[in-house]
Amino acid sequence: MTDPTRRQVVQAALVLAAAGQAGAKASAAMLGPDGDADALRLGCCYYPEQWDESRWKQDATDMVARGLSRVRIAEFAWTLMEPEAGRYDWGWLDRAVDTLSGAGLGVVMGTPTACPPEWMVARYPEILPVAKDGQVKGFGSRRYYSFSSLLYRRECARIAKAMADRYGRHKGVVGWQIDNEYGCHDTTYSYGAADLAGFRTWLRARYGTIARLNKAWGTVVWSQQSPSFEAIGLPTSSPYDFPPDMLLDYRRFASEQVMAFHKVQADVIRPLSPGRFITTNFMANFTEFDHYPVGQALDMASWDSYPLGVAAGKDDARWDRTGNPDLTGWNHDLVRGLNPAPFWIMEQQPGPVNWARYNPAPLPGMVRLWTWEAFAHGAGTVSYFRWRQGQVGPEQMHSGLNRPDGHISAGGEEAAQVAKEIARIGPIPKSARGDVALLFDYETVWMTEIQPNGSGQDHLVHAQSWYAALRKIGLNVDIVRAGTPVAGYKLVVVPSVWTIDEKIRAELAAANGLVVIGPRSGSKTADFAIPGDLPPGPLQSLVPVKVKQVAIARAGTGVPVTGTGITGQAMGWREWLETALPVLAHYDDGEAAVMGSARIWYVGCQGDAAFTGSLLKTASNRAGLKTYDLPDGVRLQRRGALTFALNYGPRSWTIPEARRRFVLGGKLVGPQQVSAWRDA
Amino acid sequence: MTDPTRRQVVQAALVLAAAGQAGAKASAAMLGPDGDADALRLGCCYYPEQWDESRWKQDATDMVARGLSRVRIAEFAWTLMEPEAGRYDWGWLDRAVDTLSGAGLGVVMGTPTACPPEWMVARYPEILPVAKDGQVKGFGSRRYYSFSSLLYRRECARIAKAMADRYGRHKGVVGWQIDNEYGCHDTTYSYGAADLAGFRTWLRARYGTIARLNKAWGTVVWSQQSPSFEAIGLPTSSPYDFPPDMLLDYRRFASEQVMAFHKVQADVIRPLSPGRFITTNFMANFTEFDHYPVGQALDMASWDSYPLGVAAGKDDARWDRTGNPDLTGWNHDLVRGLNPAPFWIMEQQPGPVNWARYNPAPLPGMVRLWTWEAFAHGAGTVSYFRWRQGQVGPEQMHSGLNRPDGHISAGGEEAAQVAKEIARIGPIPKSARGDVALLFDYETVWMTEIQPNGSGQDHLVHAQSWYAALRKIGLNVDIVRAGTPVAGYKLVVVPSVWTIDEKIRAELAAANGLVVIGPRSGSKTADFAIPGDLPPGPLQSLVPVKVKQVAIARAGTGVPVTGTGITGQAMGWREWLETALPVLAHYDDGEAAVMGSARIWYVGCQGDAAFTGSLLKTASNRAGLKTYDLPDGVRLQRRGALTFALNYGPRSWTIPEARRRFVLGGKLVGPQQVSAWRDA
Amino acid sequence: MTDPTRRQVVQAALVLAAAGQAGAKASAAMLGPDGDADALRLGCCYYPEQWDESRWKQDATDMVARGLSRVRIAEFAWTLMEPEAGRYDWGWLDRAVDTLSGAGLGVVMGTPTACPPEWMVARYPEILPVAKDGQVKGFGSRRYYSFSSLLYRRECARIAKAMADRYGRHKGVVGWQIDNEYGCHDTTYSYGAADLAGFRTWLRARYGTIARLNKAWGTVVWSQQSPSFEAIGLPTSSPYDFPPDMLLDYRRFASEQVMAFHKVQADVIRPLSPGRFITTNFMANFTEFDHYPVGQALDMASWDSYPLGVAAGKDDARWDRTGNPDLTGWNHDLVRGLNPAPFWIMEQQPGPVNWARYNPAPLPGMVRLWTWEAFAHGAGTVSYFRWRQGQVGPEQMHSGLNRPDGHISAGGEEAAQVAKEIARIGPIPKSARGDVALLFDYETVWMTEIQPNGSGQDHLVHAQSWYAALRKIGLNVDIVRAGTPVAGYKLVVVPSVWTIDEKIRAELAAANGLVVIGPRSGSKTADFAIPGDLPPGPLQSLVPVKVKQVAIARAGTGVPVTGTGITGQAMGWREWLETALPVLAHYDDGEAAVMGSARIWYVGCQGDAAFTGSLLKTASNRAGLKTYDLPDGVRLQRRGALTFALNYGPRSWTIPEARRRFVLGGKLVGPQQVSAWRDA
Repeated sequence: MTDPTRRQVVQAALVLAAAGQAGAKASAAMLGPDGDADALRLGCCYYPEQWDESRWKQDATDMVARGLSRVRIAEFAWTLMEPEAGRYDWGWLDRAVDTLSGAGLGVVMGTPTACPPEWMVARYPEILPVAKDGQVKGFGSRRYYSFSSLLYRRECARIAKAMADRYGRHKGVVGWQIDNEYGCHDTTYSYGAADLAGFRTWLRARYGTIARLNKAWGTVVWSQQSPSFEAIGLPTSSPYDFPPDMLLDYRRFASEQVMAFHKVQADVIRPLSPGRFITTNFMANFTEFDHYPVGQALDMASWDSYPLGVAAGKDDARWDRTGNPDLTGWNHDLVRGLNPAPFWIMEQQPGPVNWARYNPAPLPGMVRLWTWEAFAHGAGTVSYFRWRQGQVGPEQMHSGLNRPDGHISAGGEEAAQVAKEIARIGPIPKSARGDVALLFDYETVWMTEIQPNGSGQDHLVHAQSWYAALRKIGLNVDIVRAGTPVAGYKLVVVPSVWTIDEKIRAELAAANGLVVIGPRSGSKTADFAIPGDLPPGPLQSLVPVKVKQVAIARAGTGVPVTGTGITGQAMGWREWLETALPVLAHYDDGEAAVMGSARIWYVGCQGDAAFTGSLLKTASNRAGLKTYDLPDGVRLQRRGALTFALNYGPRSWTIPEARRRFVLGGKLVGPQQVSAWRDA
Repeated sequence: MTDPTRRQVVQAALVLAAAGQAGAKASAAMLGPDGDADALRLGCCYYPEQWDESRWKQDATDMVARGLSRVRIAEFAWTLMEPEAGRYDWGWLDRAVDTLSGAGLGVVMGTPTACPPEWMVARYPEILPVAKDGQVKGFGSRRYYSFSSLLYRRECARIAKAMADRYGRHKGVVGWQIDNEYGCHDTTYSYGAADLAGFRTWLRARYGTIARLNKAWGTVVWSQQSPSFEAIGLPTSSPYDFPPDMLLDYRRFASEQVMAFHKVQADVIRPLSPGRFITTNFMANFTEFDHYPVGQALDMASWDSYPLGVAAGKDDARWDRTGNPDLTGWNHDLVRGLNPAPFWIMEQQPGPVNWARYNPAPLPGMVRLWTWEAFAHGAGTVSYFRWRQGQVGPEQMHSGLNRPDGHISAGGEEAAQVAKEIARIGPIPKSARGDVALLFDYETVWMTEIQPNGSGQDHLVHAQSWYAALRKIGLNVDIVRAGTPVAGYKLVVVPSVWTIDEKIRAELAAANGLVVIGPRSGSKTADFAIPGDLPPGPLQSLVPVKVKQVAIARAGTGVPVTGTGITGQAMGWREWLETALPVLAHYDDGEAAVMGSARIWYVGCQGDAAFTGSLLKTASNRAGLKTYDLPDGVRLQRRGALTFALNYGPRSWTIPEARRRFVLGGKLVGPQQVSAWRDA
Repeated sequence: MTDPTRRQVVQAALVLAAAGQAGAKASAAMLGPDGDADALRLGCCYYPEQWDESRWKQDATDMVARGLSRVRIAEFAWTLMEPEAGRYDWGWLDRAVDTLSGAGLGVVMGTPTACPPEWMVARYPEILPVAKDGQVKGFGSRRYYSFSSLLYRRECARIAKAMADRYGRHKGVVGWQIDNEYGCHDTTYSYGAADLAGFRTWLRARYGTIARLNKAWGTVVWSQQSPSFEAIGLPTSSPYDFPPDMLLDYRRFASEQVMAFHKVQADVIRPLSPGRFITTNFMANFTEFDHYPVGQALDMASWDSYPLGVAAGKDDARWDRTGNPDLTGWNHDLVRGLNPAPFWIMEQQPGPVNWARYNPAPLPGMVRLWTWEAFAHGAGTVSYFRWRQGQVGPEQMHSGLNRPDGHISAGGEEAAQVAKEIARIGPIPKSARGDVALLFDYETVWMTEIQPNGSGQDHLVHAQSWYAALRKIGLNVDIVRAGTPVAGYKLVVVPSVWTIDEKIRAELAAANGLVVIGPRSGSKTADFAIPGDLPPGPLQSLVPVKVKQVAIARAGTGVPVTGTGITGQAMGWREWLETALPVLAHYDDGEAAVMGSARIWYVGCQGDAAFTGSLLKTASNRAGLKTYDLPDGVRLQRRGALTFALNYGPRSWTIPEARRRFVLGGKLVGPQQVSAWRDA
């Protein structure tokens, strides 16, 4: 059903893009109007079903008047579309689509599969997800389904086909969002009958014979041998640890279920809605499934950006009213690497949200800043969530571009300002290759969770600490999937990739810049075993080092590290290394912490910000990259010939070099302000 | 079965009392001897079944010798009363009642329904409560029943009738306590079959049609429409939030189940025990059910006062050995507002308890101080828990007026001292109206728990912070149910009432003192929706202000607020306001924090103690109230013409005005001491 | 099946040993070669099944070359021994035993019952343990069985018999380890059908009639009377506390189930493997079952020593890379008191482990130090876990004497050094009686958990604080079971024993040294009731004191205590005392804290390190014991005529007395170093 040619083009383009050859153009022609990277667009999320129909026309008119050109609808309205099994009611949705598109808005249709109707749950309780302790998660909120339920996939195909039949060729429809925020609310994992059946099928396909599985899982330890695939259970309840490879396989399986679930709807919609894009909306810092296969299967990636919600989950209160620029930036850069087409922000925070641990108000200027920041990192469209704050339901305290009484909100004013600036600023280049490639790998996140070896190990946090160190010295970072070609980058950093397959090894070998390998890299085989020649396993062919002992220190305790240009505290993970390479930094007990040659470095520990910062600044300078020393709140981001300076901080910042051709702001970038200039 | 006339009298009296017109006398005649407010009495809780019968007579004699005149018994003895289904054994209880009353004690009979016998649980397991995760809470401690079980209500009516038949007209019996500590140990909420059936019935009665329910609950959000009442489940397990109005309805339902459960026994006992009071014992800081309907249905309210147990649940170690005077005071004043008759302390802490997080010993003097404090706040009787510390069972480490070896305890000595002081002090006036009315509302507590919008929101804590600020400046506070007439008060404060119905609005409009409205007031409709004209909704007719944005800051972070006489930090909840009113205080970013006219103020934030203290001191002075600046540990309380000074603190305090007619203590109030004087 | 004579001898020896009369020799002859206390041995744990058979011979040769003489195998290999029900495969194990013993190693056979095979679990799911919430803990890790399952005991007897039939008389087999780490991973307690049946049987045997049970449990409180044994449930789920004596009986029952489970296998193996020892491996700080009966039933006790894993569970970071000497010492001394034969370290940490909250690397020297420390405290054999770090499975990150690539690890080098030192050091005396007897009692631990009366009460921590105070002043401590004769000790300390039976009372009465009784001693009867004459109950015949009130202070809050030689802060538990004895120290409110005569002291509180240290130093000096003032990291331990100085700390320590006959090290003990000398 999918067009294989098309997907090949997309994948090829991705490889080319990652390789810095602007190959994404190869696929741009197929992406419909929203693939046009030169246009920056604004949009919003809208729930016609939550408002009296008499307001729809004015809402649509107001959206356009405020400079919005895209609107996403329908992704939570299954029961209204199909009030009883098989009885569809399209009237209201027909009128909504007509009204919105009639006003000049391009409509993104959401498939409503995040919320099956009550009648379906009552009829098919087997579609519900099951918690690890056996409790069924029922109807009552959203996302109460298991990705593994074949029955539910069939129902999803049915509603997707019904929608695509009706709206697939509607002239106002520009694209599709399938489902909503896959995995949100801890729903990636389910432990019911459908999941067990799916897991066994998946294992049989992976291993063929139970003997191969037993070997891979190391079941000889603790008498865990299974006599058959039918004897395999889900990793739910046992007094102590399951085999780590079993846990990893369960997570691989669960991740692939998301992709399989997605594909069912995409395959149905594709032929019925030619020329329209298909996407889904990812979430910030979410790692429960591998975003690369899903992202590559899309026409473009999109994500939902809530900078204050993310900040509220962290201990650093400095970013409570702005968000942390390096967390927002990380997610932009990661999503930019999922697919060669310019990405969307499908949901952009427009004011205070309701769902985080703390919900402060953004400082004035931040809604505008976030929008320009998204464009700076390569976004094509920024769509705010939501047009108008709701009055009812669980999300009623989530702000919108308008207040519940219909008046424009503070965030709405800032969005309108951006719309005017877009109109003024002229053509926008595409994102080009960044200064540094940072390798990322979802399995490493999962393996770290499965076998952290001690409290506080979190691979995403570790990788983001390397990213932040690079951003603080003014570098642009491409976050690329491990195994992507990285030739052409002056600097390639690998915070950690636990399993080094031949493809990853070969691409690192082919790198012609400086490569910095972080701790725990190459520490596991694909079967979650320690390499027989010790970590870093296959990387030893590139960097002659052997990890003879490892340890994790208590949180908050550090060991001083000193070297040329490198100074700070080793904290958390630490390795004892055998190597003949020159030592670049050592611990206070004399053991080697960082070592390397002119082409490749190996780093045997995690560290504090001083360590990571000095390590990567020294490496960047060795690699010939020009670096800055930016305040924590100021970040620079290039988009082709345009460079943006974004100031999250409390103090103004003066752009160092003298002459600029500013298209936004000027030399002095005030708090919560943005400047942008074209290359001279 | 209840006498409607009687209840109307009680309710009318309550209204009058709250209006400060001493109307409670209207019902006093019906309350039997314990309604006599001029008499201060002491009592204790006693478990004859836990001691050899040979000790009963001496115990009774000793009680009287120590000045006690009331004794509560029997509330945990169902199995002894009815060892097998339908076979009653009254012999032991007959002898106990005769022995106690024969010594001159008025007996309060407890119905034993907090603890159904094992044979009943075995026969009717459906009476057991069910936790949210589906686990049945079984026999083995106490309170293992669901309020919704009609079957259990029938059994309770049966044992209540049997007891009332036997003891209802016993000359020694002065009253009844129904059940014990409703809701204790997280038992207000249950999620079993009886609860589900009850909830559906309740919803059908409330909404009539499922369409009305769907509208009220806002089920259009996230496709949550229910096709019928039979499709409604309990709010147990779903991946994310249930509709907030569903959660509120569940809590309203659960609260009403307590009342319905209570009424069954009250209705049985009332005609069989004429002239005796009916009460039940409430708990401190307990908000799981609405105390107003239950309190008004009683002949008098009572509560169980454990100041150190309450203090141990808080972070402030200063009050570990005294209790926090403002928490004890809050509960006295709240319970005084439940019913016009003088309230009881049914269980008064006499020494260390066993059940709190920490269980220190009261400082010498505190048992006496607590007793006098209860009388100062309007109590008629203080009954200590318990006569003698037990030797067996879960509560064996709970102290009593006597040690397990029979000797008098330190607390017992202090109680005996109070008995002598009562005898000496002469006639006691009734409580009159306080200086300030503070509006309280249980639904606001529930709604805050359902939709806190961020960590740390706790309405009780917020309301108590306003109460404490008023107490620190020496004011007497009447805590009144929202909707009660407040005309006649110089100052009316509303820490927050989320849903403003017409009655509440009208009574506030009729106030002739200064009204101070706190944040989040009027922020929700009765269906848990945001008012279409924004918060504070209907209050806008009294105070022209509109809340255009809200936010919650991280715990521990504050924003300075400055105004005339008002200074401190805004913390937690904050609103952005549109208003034409004069601004009384503003944040450091220039936005308005407090505003108002000569008649009504609006406060748009929560704050630290400095903010709340200066806010309410300034308001009190504007309202013409004389204020003090008391140390944290010293509090003043008037009871008619008597004024008490109570010193919880570590340092002596000198009463400022020179000449007093002291009936207790003198001008210098030492640590843990009390003074009292009559109006000159 | 067990030899009653033999057990009587062991028990008698234990009594004699505790009495300091070296009576252990009485049983030494029966212990086989490993009972030879004069020989210090090293060993390791080995998993032939995890490595290719081609490596076995070289491994065995290497072990011997490194000075190891013992090897434990097979304890997790049931599925390999019996791949299908009733079909045994001994070939691989025959070859493994032959290869190892052929190289000169004494083989310890582990019975594999910690891990039943999948086929058995599938066939008999009723053997699985059940959590308190009803969730079954399934196949998937280890220890997934209930001790109460008679069916599982039968299966265990079968495999034990099969192994003993085959290897019981093998010349290379020196002994048996039954099962592995009883109770690990929260497996002592189970709440399934087998457990319920067992509990009822146990109760019937204990009480005979339900009336006696009701009386003992105090079920008169809260109407908890049970009409029959069949009506008794397990203490799983109820809204509040179960009767404390029910909880205690459940723990007594569970503890006895471990013993009963153990006995089944021991009884099978004993006659089939004459001359070989039977042991099992205990864990550090593990108190879920009473170690005394199990320990006495063994031929020798053994335990698994992971000093860094234990340290990682505590808040004190000082010991992260060494372990806390007083926790390691406590466990050595406790296990030495379980059985008169020299104990084994069955698993000794050889480097970083994988399973603790933090997993640092031991400082260089610590593996050697731990080994000598074990010998100093009386160990006969120290066996390292494990020979070679694994590559697969949950424990792959646990270090070994060799790395996964086969090279020797840092810990392996240190073990080899110890082997050389053993060979050099000459004959080793047996442990003799220590300076102080410290009474310990498992029921006191359980009772404290059941009725802590406030946060932070932990009897093991309390007892260890007294132990640490004694160790810091250089004393050798014998930890003895309450009720053991203690005549002959100059000092006997009782941190707390809650239930004083006549045996305990009589032995304390017979003590001829100074006896120091700690708080809460004698505070409960055997039925978990308060003694009618108040605590300390029967101890009042020895020390005339009565506890009239008790309290627990908030964590971190203290009250100054002052006396002659005693100074510090009372913290946690505090008692108010009636006594005519001289007061040795009092609180700042004048109440007595410590009191006593020349023969016996009573201590009415817990305290900080200053209080406990000064208390026990003063007591030791009064008792005529010579004391030191050691740094926190330095400890002294005598083994007969040999004395060891062990330095865990960061600074060198000089042994005070001038002339020594050193057999290890010298006068200056460097960090992580050990010195040893013979009595002059």
